[in-house]
Amino acid sequence: MAGHIDHTTTPQSRSAVTPEQAAVEETLTAAVLRSFDSCTDPRLRTVMHSLVSHVHAFVRDVRLTEEEWNTAIGFLTEVGHITDDRRQEFILLSDVLGVSMQTVNVDNVAHGGATEATVFGPFFVEDAPRIDNGGDLAGGAAGQPCWVEGTVRDTDGAPVPNARIEVWEADEDGFYDVQYDDARVSARAHLFTDSDGAYRFWALTPTPYPIPHDGPVGRMLAATGRSPMRASHLHFMVSAPELRTLVTHIFVRGDDLLAHDTVFGVKDSLIKDFVEQPVGTPAPDGRDLADTTWSRVRFDIVLAPAGTVDAT
Amino acid sequence: MAGHIDHTTTPQSRSAVTPEQAAVEETLTAAVLRSFDSCTDPRLRTVMHSLVSHVHAFVRDVRLTEEEWNTAIGFLTEVGHITDDRRQEFILLSDVLGVSMQTVNVDNVAHGGATEATVFGPFFVEDAPRIDNGGDLAGGAAGQPCWVEGTVRDTDGAPVPNARIEVWEADEDGFYDVQYDDARVSARAHLFTDSDGAYRFWALTPTPYPIPHDGPVGRMLAATGRSPMRASHLHFMVSAPELRTLVTHIFVRGDDLLAHDTVFGVKDSLIKDFVEQPVGTPAPDGRDLADTTWSRVRFDIVLAPAGTVDAT
Ligand SMILES: [Fe+2]
Ligand SMILES: [Fe+2]
Repeated sequence: MAGHIDHTTTPQSRSAVTPEQAAVEETLTAAVLRSFDSCTDPRLRTVMHSLVSHVHAFVRDVRLTEEEWNTAIGFLTEVGHITDDRRQEFILLSDVLGVSMQTVNVDNVAHGGATEATVFGPFFVEDAPRIDNGGDLAGGAAGQPCWVEGTVRDTDGAPVPNARIEVWEADEDGFYDVQYDDARVSARAHLFTDSDGAYRFWALTPTPYPIPHDGPVGRMLAATGRSPMRASHLHFMVSAPELRTLVTHIFVRGDDLLAHDTVFGVKDSLIKDFVEQPVGTPAPDGRDLADTTWSRVRFDIVLAPAGTVDAT
Repeated sequence: MAGHIDHTTTPQSRSAVTPEQAAVEETLTAAVLRSFDSCTDPRLRTVMHSLVSHVHAFVRDVRLTEEEWNTAIGFLTEVGHITDDRRQEFILLSDVLGVSMQTVNVDNVAHGGATEATVFGPFFVEDAPRIDNGGDLAGGAAGQPCWVEGTVRDTDGAPVPNARIEVWEADEDGFYDVQYDDARVSARAHLFTDSDGAYRFWALTPTPYPIPHDGPVGRMLAATGRSPMRASHLHFMVSAPELRTLVTHIFVRGDDLLAHDTVFGVKDSLIKDFVEQPVGTPAPDGRDLADTTWSRVRFDIVLAPAGTVDAT
C-alpha cells in the first residue's frame, strides 16, 4: 500500500538543520503535545507526552527518510501478522531492543535482599500442569534431568508456604512446547511450596537456544550482525499473597552466552551452579536414573512486599 | 499470553531514582547499544542506536510499569491484527502521533519555491484509473462537483509536460472507496499534464471525515480526549523524471478543522480557495451541471529537483 515513494536522498545530519527548519519541527511537536490537553487521565497524558517527545526526537536526530519510514511501517506490519496465540513477535522485538529488560529494571528497583527479576519472554502459557513437590515438569520433553530445589522466603526471612511457582523452559533441542505444531504441553508446570516454604522438582538442565528468528525480528538481528542466541536458563514466576510477584530466570554458570544474551536478561545474582552428577550418583529422591548423568541446582527465592517498587 | 502480571504499583518519578539504580539502567542501555557493534551498515547502526537510546529514555523517564508494557504489547498486537491490504492501522498510529508529519518535515526541507509536502495517509492505492485532462475522478462517488486546475512547474519556472498526477479523496459521506466492503474504485484517478504543464479535472469538493476510529488507534484517541476528524482535503502525488516526487494535499480555506487536523497535516501554503459557484454558473468545460452548485479551485504545483532534501 505504501512503498512507492522513492526519494533517493541521503539523510542530512541534524547539525545542518537551519534555525527556520528547526522551528518548523519544534512547532509540530508542540502541536502534537497540545493535542493531548483534553486527556483527563494525567498518567496517560504524561506517557503520551513522553512518547511523542522521544519518537519525534528520534525522527529529527536521525533525519529519518520517507523510505525508512516506509520500511518501518512494513516491518511493524509483518511483526503484527506473524503474531498469534502461540507466537508473540512484539515481545521478541521489545526483548531484543532491551526494552523489556529496561522496563523490568525500572519496575523492580532493588528491594532489600529480594531476588532480582528478569524478562518475562514470549513463552509463558496459562494453565500449565500442576506437579507435586518432587514431581517432574518434563512431560516427555528431551533433556538431561536436573534436580531443582530451594525455598521461598520474604525479606524478613520468614518462609512462605504455599507460594505458587510456575516454571518453564526449552527442551534440549532449544524449543518450547508451543513452538511445535502438535498441541503438546511439556517442560512447563506449576507447583506450590510446602509448609516450610521449600520446593523441589525435576526439570531439564537448561541449554542455549535461539529466539524464533524466522520472522521480521530475526531478519533485523541478521541485518544488524546480531546473534539470536539466549543464554541457557530456566524461567520462574513466583507469587504469594501480599508479596510482589517475581518473574525471573536462573542461568547456568560457565555458559559462554552469559555475556551475549540477545535479550539482555542476565544478572549476576541469577547465575547459579548447575552441578553435574556422574553416572551412578544416587538421586535425592531415589529416582532410578539408570546410566544417565544429571545435574542439580539450588535457588533460594526472596519475595519483596507487594506494591514495592522504589523502596531500598 | 502476557497480561497476568498485576503489580499494583504507582510509577515513581525519575527524580527519585538513586545513583545506583540509574547506573543499572545506563549499563543496560550501553549493553544494548554495544550489541550493534558488528552491524556493517553504518546508517542502520545509527538508526538503531538512536531508536534504542530514545525508547530507553522514554521507559526511564515515565518509569514505565510492567502493566503499561503489557498494555502496549496488547495494543500493538491489535494494531497488527486489524491491518490488512485495505486498512493500515500502523500508518494511522504514526499519523495521529505526528510521526508521519515529522518525517515529512525532515525529508522535505523547504526548497526554493517548491510546493510543500504533507502526510501520505493510508488510503492511496496503486493502479487507480487513468482519466484524460478534463475528466472526472468521481467514478460514482457522491459529492459536490469541484473543478480543479493548475500547472506543474520546476523551481526555475519551466512547465513540466507529462507529469503524472495521482489524486484521491473521500466521498461526501467521509469514506474512501477502500473503506466499503464492495470492490468499488471511486474518487481516485491519475492523469498527466499537457504539453504546457497544465492539468484540469473534475473532483468532489472535499469534506471533513474521521480517520477510521473503530480500532485500537480510535480507542487511543477517545481515551486521550482527541477527535478523529481530519480537515477537508484532496490528496495529490505528483511525479516527473528528474524532479522530486511530491506527496501533498490541498485544504479548504474556512474549514473549522484546519487548526485541529488529527494528523497535523495542515500547512498554510496548502490552504486553497474552493470557490462556491451558484446554480446555473456555466462549467469551464461546458459540462451540464443541471441545477447543482459546484466549486472550483486552482493549485499550481512546483516540484523540487530530484535528490534535494537540505538545499535552501
Ligand atoms: Fe526462555
Ligand atoms: Fe485523506
